[in-house]
Formats: sequence, structure tokens, C-alpha cells
Amino acid sequence: MTTKAYGAHAADQPLQAMDIERRAPGPRDVQIDIAYCGVCHSDLHTVRSEWGGTRYPCVPGHEIVGRVSALGGEVTRFAIGDVVGVGCLVGSCQRCASCADNLEQYCENGFIGTYNGRTDDAPGHTLGGYSQRIVVDDKFVLQIRHPEAQLAAVAPLLCAGITTYSPLRHWNVGPGKKVGIVGIGGLGHMGIKIAHAMGAEVVAFTTSEGKRQDALDLGAGAVVVSRNKDEMRAHAGSFDVILDTVAASHSLDAFTALLKRDGTLVLVGVPEHPHPTPNIANLIFARRTIAGSLIGGLAETQEMLDFCADKGIVAEIEMISAQQIDEAYERMLKSDVKYRFVIDSASMAGG
Amino acid sequence: MTTKAYGAHAADQPLQAMDIERRAPGPRDVQIDIAYCGVCHSDLHTVRSEWGGTRYPCVPGHEIVGRVSALGGEVTRFAIGDVVGVGCLVGSCQRCASCADNLEQYCENGFIGTYNGRTDDAPGHTLGGYSQRIVVDDKFVLQIRHPEAQLAAVAPLLCAGITTYSPLRHWNVGPGKKVGIVGIGGLGHMGIKIAHAMGAEVVAFTTSEGKRQDALDLGAGAVVVSRNKDEMRAHAGSFDVILDTVAASHSLDAFTALLKRDGTLVLVGVPEHPHPTPNIANLIFARRTIAGSLIGGLAETQEMLDFCADKGIVAEIEMISAQQIDEAYERMLKSDVKYRFVIDSASMAGG
Repeated sequence: MTTKAYGAHAADQPLQAMDIERRAPGPRDVQIDIAYCGVCHSDLHTVRSEWGGTRYPCVPGHEIVGRVSALGGEVTRFAIGDVVGVGCLVGSCQRCASCADNLEQYCENGFIGTYNGRTDDAPGHTLGGYSQRIVVDDKFVLQIRHPEAQLAAVAPLLCAGITTYSPLRHWNVGPGKKVGIVGIGGLGHMGIKIAHAMGAEVVAFTTSEGKRQDALDLGAGAVVVSRNKDEMRAHAGSFDVILDTVAASHSLDAFTALLKRDGTLVLVGVPEHPHPTPNIANLIFARRTIAGSLIGGLAETQEMLDFCADKGIVAEIEMISAQQIDEAYERMLKSDVKYRFVIDSASMAGG
Repeated sequence: MTTKAYGAHAADQPLQAMDIERRAPGPRDVQIDIAYCGVCHSDLHTVRSEWGGTRYPCVPGHEIVGRVSALGGEVTRFAIGDVVGVGCLVGSCQRCASCADNLEQYCENGFIGTYNGRTDDAPGHTLGGYSQRIVVDDKFVLQIRHPEAQLAAVAPLLCAGITTYSPLRHWNVGPGKKVGIVGIGGLGHMGIKIAHAMGAEVVAFTTSEGKRQDALDLGAGAVVVSRNKDEMRAHAGSFDVILDTVAASHSLDAFTALLKRDGTLVLVGVPEHPHPTPNIANLIFARRTIAGSLIGGLAETQEMLDFCADKGIVAEIEMISAQQIDEAYERMLKSDVKYRFVIDSASMAGG
């Protein structure tokens, strides 16, 4: 089955229209006509092979929403026409301890990414959501219960939403807890909305004074410009959890010092250049921890989507056509987006 | 009340006999005739002002055991002749959240150390256990239930014991858990004994092949020479908790890689030169954490002493006289001790 897509033939080439093959749905497969796909920083890193190991042609995209257009005979959870989503995972071993715990993102045999993952399908690696159609194992497809008018803005929940929801839930954010969100971008703006909806007191940290009002509008109770040492000091020892969404290299010490005893600094981005080595005394003298967290499992992603539907949470987006992806990448590198680009898949129809 | 002690008058001077003053017991004080005092690395760092801020004369020692020789009128927990201990703390604010949680070691107003802490007593800072007598607030005195013949070997439990017990307990070490202990020294040898007694599977990590049999004798089920990459790789992703007792700068990545999903690497020593910056991907891809932990609170220290008495656990010690302390420091710096020096306070009688 030939499908229109946008991807790159090499690390140094722009994205372009291409035709790709999707498998015919097997007994447990769900065929989805993609409506929208969010644009994640990982897409850019992968398509340009900045992490190495990218296989070409590369079709990125793992914030996928659309409608079911065909079903395998054994699929009972979905019906034709259902509005569904696909996130960062399209497979895992289903046998290891993490899969058994519904934490497929930590699959001990390696999860299968929605793009650049291993597969028997042509061309030998998975191709993502910058396309008009995708075929996915039923277990990795999510129900979307938001109103249809919000569908484009739901797409970023599939990566940016779950990447922030999962650690906030895991480290017990809720009423009575004080939570910091570092960075107000694609991930951080979701973190602010979700932590606020969980009932926590939310403080946003940014390096740019210009984002102060935006952060308040997103749900932060206070905003701290992290370069302002007095503003930082006023929050010393007061946070239960700080979720750091900034992948660029930066000192962690200013944030560990703001944690309460037993507080946790959670990192969700691998920096290209390492962070300065953290001050261990900041950990020892208050039993603080530095942790990492990766997206979320399927059950938790569904829980997050349902939570966001209940609370009326979607991403703040700017819609683009497929033809604008390269331009969008350049703007994303300059943080010139509030707060996520989403591709209208209908724009691929023209080729 | 004049008491014989051993201490230093300046950072560059050897320890020498000196007379110090102890306060007369107030209503809530316990006066203790010291029998033995363990020798901790912190003693050496402080007496030589390697961490800065040492006040002189400096009398170190915070692994103190002895007998009650006088009591204030309001003290009901102890009687004259009771065998008791004093660890790293002799005071805290008693008002903050950490004190309220019986975690006085994390007192938000700063705990009062057994030496070099603030006090109204002469000479204006606390003087520790390298002395024949000490007067301590009842709340900071611990009951010792070990047989009296073991008393000298109980002393190191007051710092080395609780420093390892507290994180092992906090991170739920017990039957069914696999625990690593990095470093087989004063702290590590206690960590092996305690983790084994808690019912966990214990693996000791050392850089010296020569400690292999010792570690097995202490209770380790296996020993890994951490420079041997094949030995290390065989344990990848298998530990619930790794307690790292090595304060010298070293890579943490080899140990985070050995943790299971959701596993914790606990550091209990502040390195003089920072550790290399840890690999954040090791944390993110398995939701692992790096944590710090500091000694223990009074309630937990009593729990540890009772646990060790029940299980027959004491430290492995080498007894010295006060006159041998400087020599012991030099040997400690070369790790030439199995595994803790303990000063026989009777040796101070001669001056």
C-alpha cells in the first residue's frame, strides 16, 4: 500500500515528498488515516542523524492523531472511524519485566520506535507520522476522547504530554505539592498545564523574562527567571519535584538546591554536551535525588490522554503544511514557536 | 569540669594530649565516661581543616561509647552505669520539619555536630570523643544493648553503621532485593554486614583483588573487581540499590548501568574533587536515580543499634591508644586498616 510521506534521503538533505509502503493490516493491526502529526525535537535530531544511527529514507513523526480506516480481524478495541493516537512506540518485546509492568518504554529488549526502529516491513526500519497513513499493532494505538475540533492540538500530547505527565505522576505530584517546571517550550508548556491540573502549586523557570506572562497564562502560580539569583534563593529548599525539560547543557546545582529534603530533580532530556557535574553535597545533605524519565508506557499514555480530555488540556500549537517542515525546524532551533508545530497531513495530498 | 582529651591546636600540628572543659550536667544532660571512640575519615578531614572552617583547639571523634556517670534531674531514659553511645549529632533545632520527622541529621537550621559544632560551652565549639568524658543532651544519647565484651567494636556503628543502615532501610533493602556495596572500607564493610543481615543478596565492589575473600567473609554473596569490565557487565541491569561508599572521585556510570529500572545509586561521601559528570541517558532510559544520604536520625540510629545487637553485628576493628592516632591517620589514608581504628580511652589517663 503506497502512502504519501515527507522525509529525508540523507542527513544533509531537506525533507521532501516521497512515496512509502505500508503493510496490509495483519490480524492485530490498526490502519490509521493520519490527520495531524506534531513536530518534536527528536524528529530533527534523527532526520539529521545528530544522534547517529539514522537509517534512510527517514520519515520522522511520533505525535500522531487520525482515524481508523481498516482493522485486523482480531482487533476488538477499535472500530472504523475511531479517533486514535500513536506516540513514540509501535512495539516492544511483551515478555520482559518492564513490559509486564506496562512500562513498554523501558522494554529490556529495546522498544520499537515509531520511526527509525527495527521492523520486517520495507524498507527495514519504521517510518513515522509525517505521512498520510500508518499501520500499527493494536496494543500501541490509543483512544482519543477529546472533542474533534481539538484534534490537531491533541497530537503533541503523544510525546510532549506523556513525557511530562509520567514523571509528575510517578513522583506523586498533586494537591499540597510544590512543583517546578524548568524550560517553557514544547515539553515545559505541557508540564505546566498538567502539573497545574493535577492540583499542585506550579513554579515555572525560564531564562527569558519575555515568557513570564505566558507561563502564568499556562497555569504557573509563579515564574522565576533562573538567572536572577535572588529570585532563585527565595525558593530554596521548597520544592517536592522539579521537572527539568531543558536538554541543553546547564548546571543542575541551582535546581537541586531548591528541592526540599527527599525532593527529586527529574531530567527528561539527554544533553548533547554533558551538564556540568552535579554537586553531590546538595544531594547528601538533604537526601535529594536526580532522576531520569522517558516518555511513558501505553497504559499511562491512555491515562494521560483521558486526564487531559477530562481537564480540557491540549497543547498550544501552530499549524503548518508539510512543505513548511524545514522552515519549522529552523524556527524550532531558535525556540521561535508557541509551543509546538503540528503538520496538517492533508497538505501532503498535493505531493 | 576538666577532662583529658586528644586534639590539635592548629591544622598543621599533630594531635596531642590536652585538658578540656566539660559543662556540669544541666537538667536534661547525660554525662558519659567514654570507654572507646572510633576513628572516622571525617575526624582527619576536620582536624587538618581540609574542608575549611575548623575551629581550634579541635578534638575530633563521633563514634563514642561509654557509661553514664551523672544525670540531670529531668532525664528519665537513662540510669547511672548504663552503656550508651553518641554519634555525629549532639543537637538540632527540634522545630523544623526534618526534626519533627525524627530526621535530625537534615535539620533545616543545621544540626550541631559532636565536634566543631556551635555551642555556648567553652571554647565556643563542640569537642568530640577523643576524650575521657562528654556531656550530651539526653535526646542525643543512644542505648547500647550489645554484650559489654563487644563494646569497642560497637563504637563504629555510631557513624559508619548508621551511614550505611539509613539508606539501605530508606531504599527498602531486604529479602528479594539485590544490593551492591561499593568500596570495602570503614563504611563499606558495615554496609556488607548490614545489607546481608537485612536478607538481601549482596554484591561487593572493590578495586583490589586482595579484598575478595574478606568481602565474602563479611557476608557478600559475590565480589566484583570493578576494573574488570566483563565481571561488571555480567551484573548489568540487575541491582535494586547500589550504595557507593567511595568518596574519592570516580565514574558513576559503571554503577548506574548495573541498576535495574527504577534502581537507585546512593552516594554517602562528598568527593574532594568532583566525580566525572554522570551519563544522564543511563538515568532516563531506565528511570534510575542518583541519590545522596547523610548518617541517620536519632530514632533510626537507635533502631540500627538494636538491629545490630539482635543480629550480632559489630565492626571489625583495630584497637589503638590515643598516642597512636597520628600514625593511625597515616595508615587510614593508605587504607591500611581492617576496617576501623578505635581509641581505647583508658590510654589517655597517662596524659
